Amino acid sequence: MAQNIYDNPAFFEGYSQLSRSVEGLAGAAEWPALQAMLPKPTNLRVVDLGCGYGWFCRWAAEQGAAKVVGLDVSEKMLERAVASTSDPVVTYARADLEQLDFAEAGFDLAYSSLTLHYIADLSGLFEKIHRALVPGGKLVFSIEHPIYMASMHPGWMTDAQGRKIWPVDSYQLEGPRTTNWLADGVIKQHRTIGTILNLLIGAGFTITHVEDWGPTAAQVAARPELAEEKERPMLLLVAAQR
Amino acid sequence: MAQNIYDNPAFFEGYSQLSRSVEGLAGAAEWPALQAMLPKPTNLRVVDLGCGYGWFCRWAAEQGAAKVVGLDVSEKMLERAVASTSDPVVTYARADLEQLDFAEAGFDLAYSSLTLHYIADLSGLFEKIHRALVPGGKLVFSIEHPIYMASMHPGWMTDAQGRKIWPVDSYQLEGPRTTNWLADGVIKQHRTIGTILNLLIGAGFTITHVEDWGPTAAQVAARPELAEEKERPMLLLVAAQR
Repeated sequence: MAQNIYDNPAFFEGYSQLSRSVEGLAGAAEWPALQAMLPKPTNLRVVDLGCGYGWFCRWAAEQGAAKVVGLDVSEKMLERAVASTSDPVVTYARADLEQLDFAEAGFDLAYSSLTLHYIADLSGLFEKIHRALVPGGKLVFSIEHPIYMASMHPGWMTDAQGRKIWPVDSYQLEGPRTTNWLADGVIKQHRTIGTILNLLIGAGFTITHVEDWGPTAAQVAARPELAEEKERPMLLLVAAQR
Repeated sequence: MAQNIYDNPAFFEGYSQLSRSVEGLAGAAEWPALQAMLPKPTNLRVVDLGCGYGWFCRWAAEQGAAKVVGLDVSEKMLERAVASTSDPVVTYARADLEQLDFAEAGFDLAYSSLTLHYIADLSGLFEKIHRALVPGGKLVFSIEHPIYMASMHPGWMTDAQGRKIWPVDSYQLEGPRTTNWLADGVIKQHRTIGTILNLLIGAGFTITHVEDWGPTAAQVAARPELAEEKERPMLLLVAAQR
């Protein structure tokens, strides 16, 4: 199964203090862009792959989703998701997304936020999501951007002239990248953009929107520390349709 | 109209000495990957946008294409294309791709090699190509990769540990990039990957394959200088269908 770093105490402690953990969707700068890519959840059957604290599940329920299933591998996160959710249309289940299987075509929308870069068998997961969606059903996800992930030693650098740059190396070398983010030894899977998109296409999806996420001018004005996100994309947002 | 750098004497002189100019398709390391994305040209009506010396047009004709139209803005390149081509199915025309218009649906395949990053109105061109293709017709192109193009000061660097890296900055700042490649002041248009793909989707295309091109192990063995192309992609290859 995929590494369950979220149940590592140090990681969980760090993660629980991020603005996206404390404030939910409003604390995630990419949320407005992702939301614009989503169908309105009203009356839809929704599955959230890597639901974390359940912020998206509760939002979908508030928007009138007919059914919301939140899946996560982390026991600790699910505990908090359950404790924070009262809407009866939402159910949570612990699931290793690499082992998961769905009954045929039970969902109108599959959503996944910053989870798929932990998955080793992404091809298999895309195929399962495709089977889980009704024809015309949508998959919308965010994933760490290959530009952000490729380097063996990621991090801001300054060039000889003192300009801030992001290093890219090892781009074609797909596979695990180990970083020390919140905890040591967090393992993510680097793939090229082509691979991510071709796996979707190979699973039967039609790609409808691709976005190398960057902050808007208004977001940078409100939170100047976001300016560096315009230099290189940290997140790739993708919408696809069965 | 787009900058016609190919008729700049210094640029033309330098360009004419590149292996892709001397050896044609065999001198372009990305050609096997592009070829794998192409339909077999036999009996197809083909248009090449930015045909240069006509290497692709002659290849398509040799493969039995029913009609091949090569378009280029460079008078000098077209002169050489015409002088090098005897197959009567091939015709060349001088055209500024930004001013171009096609009659409806006359082609089965549109091809473009390393030309579209010179185009300011890419949206308009994709729409014209879409109209020029029959339903089911294909567009296959290569374009300089946004990772390669984004930086205001592109070029290999070494980090503090002496490791070779490629800088990325200014990724979200779309628009002109001026470089001194073969001649001073060559103007290219940087776009994010999302923008390139969304313009295609917006023009009515279905994306069928995306490849951040890198050399194969066999290519690196034969030409060790290609190894650095595995560190960061220089070319983006895309196949789409009307």
